[in-house]
Amino acid sequence: MPERKGHYTVALSSRPTILGYAAVVGKKEGEGPLARYFDAIYQDTTMGEKTWEKAESALQKEAFTRALDKAGFSPSQVNFLFAGDLLNQNIASTFGLRESHIPLLGQFGACSIMAQTLSMASIFVDSGAADLCSAVTSSHFCTAERQFRYPLEYGGQRPPTSTWTATASGSVVVGLGGNGVRVADVCIGRVVDLGITDMNNMGAAMAPAAADTLYNFLQDTGTKPSDYDLIVTGDLSAIGSSLMKDLMQRKGYTFGEEYNDCGLMLYDRQTQDVHAGGSGCGCSASVLCSYILQKMEKKEWNDVLFIATGALMSPTSSQQGESIPGIAHLVHLVTTAQ
Amino acid sequence: MPERKGHYTVALSSRPTILGYAAVVGKKEGEGPLARYFDAIYQDTTMGEKTWEKAESALQKEAFTRALDKAGFSPSQVNFLFAGDLLNQNIASTFGLRESHIPLLGQFGACSIMAQTLSMASIFVDSGAADLCSAVTSSHFCTAERQFRYPLEYGGQRPPTSTWTATASGSVVVGLGGNGVRVADVCIGRVVDLGITDMNNMGAAMAPAAADTLYNFLQDTGTKPSDYDLIVTGDLSAIGSSLMKDLMQRKGYTFGEEYNDCGLMLYDRQTQDVHAGGSGCGCSASVLCSYILQKMEKKEWNDVLFIATGALMSPTSSQQGESIPGIAHLVHLVTTAQ
Repeated sequence: MPERKGHYTVALSSRPTILGYAAVVGKKEGEGPLARYFDAIYQDTTMGEKTWEKAESALQKEAFTRALDKAGFSPSQVNFLFAGDLLNQNIASTFGLRESHIPLLGQFGACSIMAQTLSMASIFVDSGAADLCSAVTSSHFCTAERQFRYPLEYGGQRPPTSTWTATASGSVVVGLGGNGVRVADVCIGRVVDLGITDMNNMGAAMAPAAADTLYNFLQDTGTKPSDYDLIVTGDLSAIGSSLMKDLMQRKGYTFGEEYNDCGLMLYDRQTQDVHAGGSGCGCSASVLCSYILQKMEKKEWNDVLFIATGALMSPTSSQQGESIPGIAHLVHLVTTAQ
Repeated sequence: MPERKGHYTVALSSRPTILGYAAVVGKKEGEGPLARYFDAIYQDTTMGEKTWEKAESALQKEAFTRALDKAGFSPSQVNFLFAGDLLNQNIASTFGLRESHIPLLGQFGACSIMAQTLSMASIFVDSGAADLCSAVTSSHFCTAERQFRYPLEYGGQRPPTSTWTATASGSVVVGLGGNGVRVADVCIGRVVDLGITDMNNMGAAMAPAAADTLYNFLQDTGTKPSDYDLIVTGDLSAIGSSLMKDLMQRKGYTFGEEYNDCGLMLYDRQTQDVHAGGSGCGCSASVLCSYILQKMEKKEWNDVLFIATGALMSPTSSQQGESIPGIAHLVHLVTTAQ
């Protein structure tokens, strides 16, 4: 049963298990340093579909189906599906998962969705509201560019602070018992807005939210960064993760080798022309659902904080002069049942 | 603690309480038959803001603040905020609730959001994951027209099947014990898509989802429509609610006087020129958070099924030839603690 631990953290006493997981990615992600950890790499990122949006839906369907297959369940056994994406009205999820016929609770937290959906799935399972839940999210470079920036054909210049939206999807299946990585705690983030208005510098907009959530969790649990094998933020990338470390240092916390960021892990920044790094819901989702969970299953890491970060603006809010609010949700993953 | 009841329904054994609620609406809604039940009616639907989107955020902030005040709590006492709206990337919620500094779990289910956020808040409270949660949603005629249909200045003709998006927001505060209407069960809906493609006939697109969720709930609980004082759908309006009744009749269920639809309750269809009726997240939210909950507090109704319905398309999906998937979530409200 879920129990409140401090002001922000919820401890999950049954430690729900990630019974299956999968990450599927596009060509560029498949050329990066994590290639061998992915379940599938699609050279054709249209996925054979007529539009980029339908391609992103297809990616989500693939990740969802593969995770469920690996867990050994059929869709009819899943009680709830927690899913969301960056597209207007969550259409990648809605259309991608439409045929699953599973009760759907659409989630929105921009690029923090993997942590949000995994948190919800874990709380539902821990509480008894569900026996089995799926969590899934995605992003696609071409849908995100069209919706948030410029049509691809325009060939807009990308400034050095910009990040590259991952073409990727990740999914997990959460239940009780069995073998797999466990969810020990979740810490849901608040909206934090320090007034950043540059849509090409999302890392800076999200860094304060990541620092806020991590600080709240460390305070609630009385732990420090070095207590964990890995503390990984969602997609702050180069600029944001540096800012996050600065903000945490001001609050008295320093990081060693245990800190990393999914946006810095998915691509080789030296050779892959991604500027500040990777971003998008699919970035943290695909890194979690491949490299991180595989390393944990091998017990190379036993205690991990996964903090996915989201920038909650829309093109409309930015055109109306609004700043970019950030949010970050944290999931504490462990390899032991107690 | 939440307990599964049948395949789709979750029973909440503590029956979380709606400790406070509020509905705020615009001028047109304030001229309708429910006027005297609302907490505030704004003659100026700009809310003094420079854009319609900021006005919708202001509406949400009003509903959230009033509900919390009525419940006698401050924002710092709320553990989680479940909020969402129709706007791209949920900006009405994000910007409207940004200053509350409450951990936020953004929800998306189109016009089903009031039932979705209330369900989530109730499950979290019942499970022990939270002591106190807020749920809030909104819609605004002018933001919805701009985003989903035509610029207002264009003066597009509205066909008879179309509905009028409510300018309204509703919010509830959910906790344990105390006085107020109780949440006994929730039933989360699946995506149902029978192939409707007409964006001006959302009622028809959502009716099959409403029938699916209601049927699942009645089967899970072994009850029939006449067991309830009121069964109220979200915003099917005239065409959709008639279709829903037909679909239920084919499954062996008939309705008497106990059935109604929020889209038929919010406006006077004879005089207010709303065509098929009202719609939008704010429609079911404002009818629930005024008329329905007030009638229940007076024990005029003791057993109510609130089924908010959503159409999960985006302009992009419709332009790409996709049909309109529907979804509906059900909340079973009662006036007794056991």
